[in-house]
Amino acid sequence: MPLKMDAAALNAFLDQAFEQVADDFVVEDVATDRLTVRLEVSDKHLRPGGTVSGPTMFALADVGAYLMTLARIGPQALAVTTNCAIDFMHKPAARTDLLGEVRLLKLGKQLSVCDVLIYSKGQEPPVARASLTYAIPPQ
Amino acid sequence: MPLKMDAAALNAFLDQAFEQVADDFVVEDVATDRLTVRLEVSDKHLRPGGTVSGPTMFALADVGAYLMTLARIGPQALAVTTNCAIDFMHKPAARTDLLGEVRLLKLGKQLSVCDVLIYSKGQEPPVARASLTYAIPPQ
Amino acid sequence: MPLKMDAAALNAFLDQAFEQVADDFVVEDVATDRLTVRLEVSDKHLRPGGTVSGPTMFALADVGAYLMTLARIGPQALAVTTNCAIDFMHKPAARTDLLGEVRLLKLGKQLSVCDVLIYSKGQEPPVARASLTYAIPPQ
Amino acid sequence: MPLKMDAAALNAFLDQAFEQVADDFVVEDVATDRLTVRLEVSDKHLRPGGTVSGPTMFALADVGAYLMTLARIGPQALAVTTNCAIDFMHKPAARTDLLGEVRLLKLGKQLSVCDVLIYSKGQEPPVARASLTYAIPPQ
Repeated sequence: MPLKMDAAALNAFLDQAFEQVADDFVVEDVATDRLTVRLEVSDKHLRPGGTVSGPTMFALADVGAYLMTLARIGPQALAVTTNCAIDFMHKPAARTDLLGEVRLLKLGKQLSVCDVLIYSKGQEPPVARASLTYAIPPQ
Repeated sequence: MPLKMDAAALNAFLDQAFEQVADDFVVEDVATDRLTVRLEVSDKHLRPGGTVSGPTMFALADVGAYLMTLARIGPQALAVTTNCAIDFMHKPAARTDLLGEVRLLKLGKQLSVCDVLIYSKGQEPPVARASLTYAIPPQ
Repeated sequence: MPLKMDAAALNAFLDQAFEQVADDFVVEDVATDRLTVRLEVSDKHLRPGGTVSGPTMFALADVGAYLMTLARIGPQALAVTTNCAIDFMHKPAARTDLLGEVRLLKLGKQLSVCDVLIYSKGQEPPVARASLTYAIPPQ
Repeated sequence: MPLKMDAAALNAFLDQAFEQVADDFVVEDVATDRLTVRLEVSDKHLRPGGTVSGPTMFALADVGAYLMTLARIGPQALAVTTNCAIDFMHKPAARTDLLGEVRLLKLGKQLSVCDVLIYSKGQEPPVARASLTYAIPPQ
């Protein structure tokens, strides 16, 4: 199935609709059922010790799965997160960008479901995993 | 069972250990198995339309359940969030403080479990619910 | 808001639509936003040691939240579980009925959200907690 | 890292320790961080319409992630499920075996974390996804 938005279109959408966080997140790559989003880490994301905070990892998973859904349904849709389950597995490396690797598992009429693995850039294993559901409003 | 930290001690701990977010959150009340924490909403928490963002609601649930656990085990412990499941149910009211009502469901040697209902201050029904697990390091 | 099904109607519905599990579960009480369902424990629910298995506790939470939703929308609706997060906190007492205490947190047009505390009958604290989402098909 | 139990050892363990469900589940393949487990579907797993019930899918994810953990830590350990988040995405095919594809995401001293995709055998896309945490008792 074709994409309705590529990486450039998703980044432009982020700039326009979510300017408060657009500087934090960059879509690096998107395909039919996969998307990679990077968190450009800065001081506001950190906890004592220099590691990225839990709410920032949540935000990365949330924006990644949201943009994966929009890549398929287009920017007109007002999808809202209804549910997220997230596991924090390892401490991220200090002051290192995070990558969110998103998989689209379901794209239905009412709901989309994605999962996300979060990595400290350049390192294994993943520091967190998340699964998210979006409600897609009636067209 | 007695509390090891009261509301004043928890707020002082937040100021000292998490100064980046200490201005956002205020413990209003704490008891053996319940805690109320308030988000003082400001521009940085908002999305277009003036409602509080999902990551901010996650942060409120996370800090509330963390402080509930510390209230019982004391400030020396380095508890870390291992897991959260959160449901976003309604849009919060615009520019309105949020309240997190935390229940402590389990306090074991290795793990604590809490759930949280999040309200727009002064309004029913809850806008979100969350459950969280903390790993308590060996003493 | 009025109930469309009382406890007797819910138990009759269970007998008719889910005869394979109807003997296991009994609705004891239902109100506008609360429902109590009991698992009549028998050998098939047990693990070595005589405690109720995890899948059986999941089934109790699932059927309880499903019946709570039906109590409000009526038996005609084909609601399906879309999501569950469950925490297993304590071992249930051996060969003891379980009670599921369900709260209805949201009843929207597309989705309902409930949480459930599961108890070994007559004992504190809860052995498990769960939250569940149901998709309600268009009327 | 080496496996402490191969597929034959895991199936033998299931026969011995969980005889009530051992006939339902077969480990087909196991590697360092992946395991495939099959549900041999029979009448007791079905709902009206011939599709596999939600609690049975939960049981498949649970046993799969448990056996993946045991494959690495060995049969002596009394791991217990502490948490599961599961999304039901599509109706399974009628009267068709289910496959659980398990990934081990973390193996720590206190906790292991797995995720699972569940498929109707021979069909895409997955019908469900789950993530699970096990508590590993002190050695």
